[in-house]
Amino acid sequence: MATFELKAECPVTRARAGVLHTAHGNVETPVFMPVGTQATVKGLTGRDLAEDLDVRILLANTYHLFLRPGHELIRRMGGLHQFMSWPRAILTDSGGYQVFSLSGLRKITDEGVVFQSHLDGDRHVFTPESTVDVQLALSSDIMMALDECPEYPVSHEYARASMDRTIRWARSGYAHYQRRKAENNTSASLYLIVQGSMFEDLRKTCAQELVALEADGYAIGGLSVGEPRPLSLAMVETTEPLLPRQRPRYAMGVGMPEELPEYVARGIDMMDCVLPTRNARNGYLFTSHGRVIIKHTRYKDDQRPVDETCSCYTCRNHTRAYLRHLYQAGEMLYAVLATRHNLARYLDIMREIRHAIVLGQFPEYLKAVRAVPVEVE
Amino acid sequence: MATFELKAECPVTRARAGVLHTAHGNVETPVFMPVGTQATVKGLTGRDLAEDLDVRILLANTYHLFLRPGHELIRRMGGLHQFMSWPRAILTDSGGYQVFSLSGLRKITDEGVVFQSHLDGDRHVFTPESTVDVQLALSSDIMMALDECPEYPVSHEYARASMDRTIRWARSGYAHYQRRKAENNTSASLYLIVQGSMFEDLRKTCAQELVALEADGYAIGGLSVGEPRPLSLAMVETTEPLLPRQRPRYAMGVGMPEELPEYVARGIDMMDCVLPTRNARNGYLFTSHGRVIIKHTRYKDDQRPVDETCSCYTCRNHTRAYLRHLYQAGEMLYAVLATRHNLARYLDIMREIRHAIVLGQFPEYLKAVRAVPVEVE
Repeated sequence: MATFELKAECPVTRARAGVLHTAHGNVETPVFMPVGTQATVKGLTGRDLAEDLDVRILLANTYHLFLRPGHELIRRMGGLHQFMSWPRAILTDSGGYQVFSLSGLRKITDEGVVFQSHLDGDRHVFTPESTVDVQLALSSDIMMALDECPEYPVSHEYARASMDRTIRWARSGYAHYQRRKAENNTSASLYLIVQGSMFEDLRKTCAQELVALEADGYAIGGLSVGEPRPLSLAMVETTEPLLPRQRPRYAMGVGMPEELPEYVARGIDMMDCVLPTRNARNGYLFTSHGRVIIKHTRYKDDQRPVDETCSCYTCRNHTRAYLRHLYQAGEMLYAVLATRHNLARYLDIMREIRHAIVLGQFPEYLKAVRAVPVEVE
Repeated sequence: MATFELKAECPVTRARAGVLHTAHGNVETPVFMPVGTQATVKGLTGRDLAEDLDVRILLANTYHLFLRPGHELIRRMGGLHQFMSWPRAILTDSGGYQVFSLSGLRKITDEGVVFQSHLDGDRHVFTPESTVDVQLALSSDIMMALDECPEYPVSHEYARASMDRTIRWARSGYAHYQRRKAENNTSASLYLIVQGSMFEDLRKTCAQELVALEADGYAIGGLSVGEPRPLSLAMVETTEPLLPRQRPRYAMGVGMPEELPEYVARGIDMMDCVLPTRNARNGYLFTSHGRVIIKHTRYKDDQRPVDETCSCYTCRNHTRAYLRHLYQAGEMLYAVLATRHNLARYLDIMREIRHAIVLGQFPEYLKAVRAVPVEVE
C-alpha cells in the first residue's frame, strides 16, 4: 500500500511535510499532481515530466480510460504505468466526477450511476465495486472511491441524501477493495472522499463516518464546483481536524497558484487541478509576478522569458515574443512550451512550501506570499 | 558564406558526401532538412531536434514568416536563430513557392508577384530583390532566389516563358544579393533554382544560364508538383551534370523515404520535404519494414515499438498500442512522438547513405534498398 510518513509539522498552521511511499517511488508532500487525463499530460513526454519537472505522481482519469482505450486493454498491456511508459506513481479518480459532469447523460441510483459515453452514446454503469475493479485494472497506486459530487448550490436536503449515498458507496467500495486486496495482493490504496456540499454539519458527519473505515487516505471532494473561494477553504477547515493525522489529505481539483499555500496551511497534503495545463494551452501563463496573457500585443517583441526567475526549459530557452508568435500561429509547440512552464511554476511553489515547512518557516512564507498582490502583467 | 567541401564521391553513381560549412555549424551531406515552416518544426523543441535527432539544418518558410510575425520583427529579435532559439543552420525558401500555391490570390508580372495574404487578405509584393532582403532580415544561412514554380503539366510555351522569367529574376536577385553582401558583410549564401518544368531542353538552358552566375549552390525546383516519379528523377538526371561539381545541389521538396537514395545517386546533396512531419501528424509512420498506419485496429494491443530497429525516443519508450491510443484520442503527444520518429527515420536513412558513400559501398547499398519492397505493414 501507499503509506504516508509525516516528516515535519508547522507549529502555527496545520501545514505538514511528509513522504508518500508507493510501489512506484516516493512522493514528497505537500504535492501537486499534474493531470494526465487520457494517459498523457497534454503535450509532454515522460522525459519532460520526470527529468525536467521531476514530477513524482500523476493523476489519470478513470472515466476517460475506461471508455478509451478501455481498462481491460490497459490491463493486458501491463497496467497504466507500462502502457504510458511512466514508472512513477499514478493516482486515478473513480470516474464519478466526470460522469456527474455529463448531466443529461446520466442517472444516479443507490447502486451506482448509469451513463452514456460522450464518445459513442453507449450505456455503461459505474458502481462502487466496479470502479475499484477498473482502477485495479489500470494498476493505479492510489485509487479513489466512487462518490457523488453535487453541483453548487444544492439544498441541505439534497446534499444530505447525496452525502448519505457517498457514505454507503464508500462502505461498499471499501469492502470490495478489501476483498480484492485479500485475493490479489494489490499494492494499491483506496482513498475515501468526504462530501457534504457547503454544509458544515454534513461535512463533519461524512468525515466521521468515513474515518471509521480506517482508509489509507482521505480526500475532500466537492470543492471548486463554483462556490466562492472562502467557502471552499471554510469546508476544508471544518473537515480536516476530523481526519486522522497520520493519513494524507487530498483536496480534489484545486487550485490557483495563490491558493496552494492556503490549502497546505489548512492541513492538505495533496492537490490536483487542470488549471496549469489547461490555462497554458489557452494562453494564460503563471509567473512569480502574476499572470501573463501571451496573446497581448505588448509581448510581441518582448525578449524576456515568461518568468525571469524560472529555470524551466521554456524560460531558459525562449522569449515571450517567440511564445506569442507560436500562440498566434496556432503552433503545437506553443502548448508544449507553455504547459512545461505552468507546471514548473506549480511544482516550484510546492517545493518552496515544503522547504518552508521543513525549515519551520511556513508562517513567514505564508505571510510573504499573501502580501504579494495577484497581478496580470 | 556557406561553403561546400566534397569529401567522397561514389565511383559508380553520381553520389557524393560532403560538408557544408555555415556560420551556424557544419552540415554533413547528403542531408535531409526538416521543415520548420513558422519558425518551429511542428511539436518539437530545439532540444528534441538538436540533442535527440542531431538535426544540423532546418528549413523555414519565408512566406509564412514574412506575414507572421513579420521579418522586421524577427530582425529586431536578432534574426531567426535567436528568435526561435536554434543555434544551428537555417535555409529559407524565397516564399515564391507558397505564393504560387495561392493561385487565385496572386498575379505574376515581370517585376515579381503580387499576392494577397491567406491570413487577412492584405496585398503584398515579392520581387527578386525584396525576397533577398526579407531573407537577410531573417538572418538565414542559405537563402533561395525567387523563382516561378509552374504547376504540372504546363505547355512547353508556358514553361519556356516561366523559365525565362525565373532566369531574369535570378539575375536581378543575385545582383541585389551581391550589392547587399558588399554593404552588409553578410555570411549568407544565395542559391539559384533551375526550373523548366518537365522539358529537358528548358532544364538544360536554365542550368547553363544560372551556372554562369557562379552562385554558391544550385537547386532543382519544380519537382514533386504532381508529375510521375520517373519524370522527377529524369529531370534531375538532365540537370545535374550541368551543375558545378564543387557546389551543393538541392532537390526541393523531395521525397518519400525510398526516393532519398535515388536522388543522392543522381548527385543531389540536399533535400527537404514536409512528408515525414506531415505524415506523422496524419498517422503515417515510416519504418525500416514499410509504413505503419497507426489508426488500424491491428495495432490496438501491439506492444512493439513503431520500428524495432529504430533507436529514437519514441521507439525506445513507447508501443504502437500507446501511440494508437493517443492518435485515436486526438492527443497532442501523438504528433510530438510520431514526428520525432518519422524524422529519426529520415535522418537515419541519410546517415546510412552517407556512410555507404564514404566507405565506397554506395552501389551495394543502393542495390540492397532497391530490393526491399515498400510494404504497408
